[in-house]
Amino acid sequence: MKNKVQLKDIALAAGVSPALASYVMNGRYENRIKKETADKIRKIAEEMGYVPNQIAKSLKIKKTFTIGLMLGDIMNPFSYHIARIIEDEAKKYNYTVIFGSCDENKDQSKKLMDTLINRQVDGFIIAAAAGTQSQLKSLQQMEIPFILIDRYFPEEKFNYITIDNYGASFQAVDHLAKTGREKIAIINYESELVHLQNRTKGYVDALKANKIKPKQEWVCNVKMRDNPENIKNEIAEFLKNRKSIDALFVSTNGLTLQTLKLLNKLEIKVPDDLAIVCFDETDAVELFYSPLTFVKQPMQQMGSLAVQTLLKQVEKNDNQLHEIVLETTFVVNKSSGVA
Amino acid sequence: MKNKVQLKDIALAAGVSPALASYVMNGRYENRIKKETADKIRKIAEEMGYVPNQIAKSLKIKKTFTIGLMLGDIMNPFSYHIARIIEDEAKKYNYTVIFGSCDENKDQSKKLMDTLINRQVDGFIIAAAAGTQSQLKSLQQMEIPFILIDRYFPEEKFNYITIDNYGASFQAVDHLAKTGREKIAIINYESELVHLQNRTKGYVDALKANKIKPKQEWVCNVKMRDNPENIKNEIAEFLKNRKSIDALFVSTNGLTLQTLKLLNKLEIKVPDDLAIVCFDETDAVELFYSPLTFVKQPMQQMGSLAVQTLLKQVEKNDNQLHEIVLETTFVVNKSSGVA
Repeated sequence: MKNKVQLKDIALAAGVSPALASYVMNGRYENRIKKETADKIRKIAEEMGYVPNQIAKSLKIKKTFTIGLMLGDIMNPFSYHIARIIEDEAKKYNYTVIFGSCDENKDQSKKLMDTLINRQVDGFIIAAAAGTQSQLKSLQQMEIPFILIDRYFPEEKFNYITIDNYGASFQAVDHLAKTGREKIAIINYESELVHLQNRTKGYVDALKANKIKPKQEWVCNVKMRDNPENIKNEIAEFLKNRKSIDALFVSTNGLTLQTLKLLNKLEIKVPDDLAIVCFDETDAVELFYSPLTFVKQPMQQMGSLAVQTLLKQVEKNDNQLHEIVLETTFVVNKSSGVA
Repeated sequence: MKNKVQLKDIALAAGVSPALASYVMNGRYENRIKKETADKIRKIAEEMGYVPNQIAKSLKIKKTFTIGLMLGDIMNPFSYHIARIIEDEAKKYNYTVIFGSCDENKDQSKKLMDTLINRQVDGFIIAAAAGTQSQLKSLQQMEIPFILIDRYFPEEKFNYITIDNYGASFQAVDHLAKTGREKIAIINYESELVHLQNRTKGYVDALKANKIKPKQEWVCNVKMRDNPENIKNEIAEFLKNRKSIDALFVSTNGLTLQTLKLLNKLEIKVPDDLAIVCFDETDAVELFYSPLTFVKQPMQQMGSLAVQTLLKQVEKNDNQLHEIVLETTFVVNKSSGVA
């Protein structure tokens, strides 16, 4: 890498002192410098390809105006959707977002976090992988601001924004029961992530509330970090033996995609053969021939609040603990058989 | 932000010299330091939450093992798919990828590029927005390695990896003509991006090669940076007046998603009312009731080659110009009416 253009190079080219070039490029003493001189310096800086050194600047003002965003897997619809919202919201406050995936892996999470710490981000927004509590505690010890989204650890004092996973799942399954379905299955990940466990709890309690006795054969639990081919095969096996079920609650958007593709392939008719309710608004809702009944997360609100809550810590040294639980909306479409 | 744990703090806690702590933490003189001492220092470092300072390290070895990835829009299927492949490939070489979206916007591209330059990335992989040639030239002048993916600028000497956009589109439209369609429409973006223009050229030339005279009324060109609602309305209007067409080539995956949703809504039957051929393998291929005939980009190859070609520059000072054009595969499914 060749040396970047320095202020002194610009000063030389413009025939002014380095100090004057520095004042202009950093917007200081504006009313004491002739406009023509300032314009000339800025023009030369641009022509020479000068990049203001934000790190050097940040050593003085102690900020880099950069947010580090750590996601599960960028291929997951929740990830890229929330990333986009966070980028747009951050831009309003003149912050740039740089991000990467942890791939639900503790070690990769650590590596990405270290990379971003060393890149001097002002704070983090994190969709935490399972087992990363100690990494998050290190952030706290270093007093680096952060907020969790989606996933959280109830036993820890970390800022988080999540949804009412239990309530949303209860509502989804209650809808199936109240509209006449009696043998309601669930596809979920087997995981130590609390938000996913709460989705299964909501399912079980909704069955009980409708006097339906939960059965083990209605539960399809797939391993979170298994390879996609295995997950697909497990769901396919489950769907082929579906005779004993008349409805299905799919607890994540990734699992929903897999399930819908298999329903097409196996020519299982929705909602006649099987009523479907799923989690999250994705392209699949309108792409599938039977528009999907789904739990809608308040993505926009979650992303905006994450940025705003983080920036309160970054800019105003806000030290309050923020444990934010947002409500979901339940959207009824054709796939659950009543619209 | 509290000061991070320093090597001297670890040395103090371990009762050793700072130099010794440094040797152990940087893996130097391993055979000259007692294993128990080294283990003790490492254990204390971990307990104290020590983060190896990659920037400090990189000042010596002049590398940060970080790749900056600049994407169009992270919500676009091409973006998140290639991001994932690049992350996985980079990991093989022990590089971390940090990324962000330019949102097809020149200014946002500049800001993201500056942010990443200041974060000392070793090199860039860039899906360049229109009009960013001068930004890329600055990178060249600073001798910061980079390679373009997907988009490229034929008149410039930049490294790039793209596909044969003209040939792929020709093949797609030729397939429709050869299987009996006579009134073949195209939906594409109106854009100064060469790869998109080449897709329209391939469409026009395939019609001519099949003795079909292209008609203006068969062309739906939507503005690239228009808001999604406007794009949707434009495509909807076009589809409602479809009487004069019997087949449709959709030139990007984003436009394909919009088009398929509208076909569902307008109850236009594929392939009976309208044969469809589109670009890129996405979830839509299997989610749509009529599995899609599509142009398959070699995503894995493109992502891997991008990383490998970039790292040749970063690690081996490779100065050759790499202009790589990959072949696509054409996958025939039900939507074009012949499978």
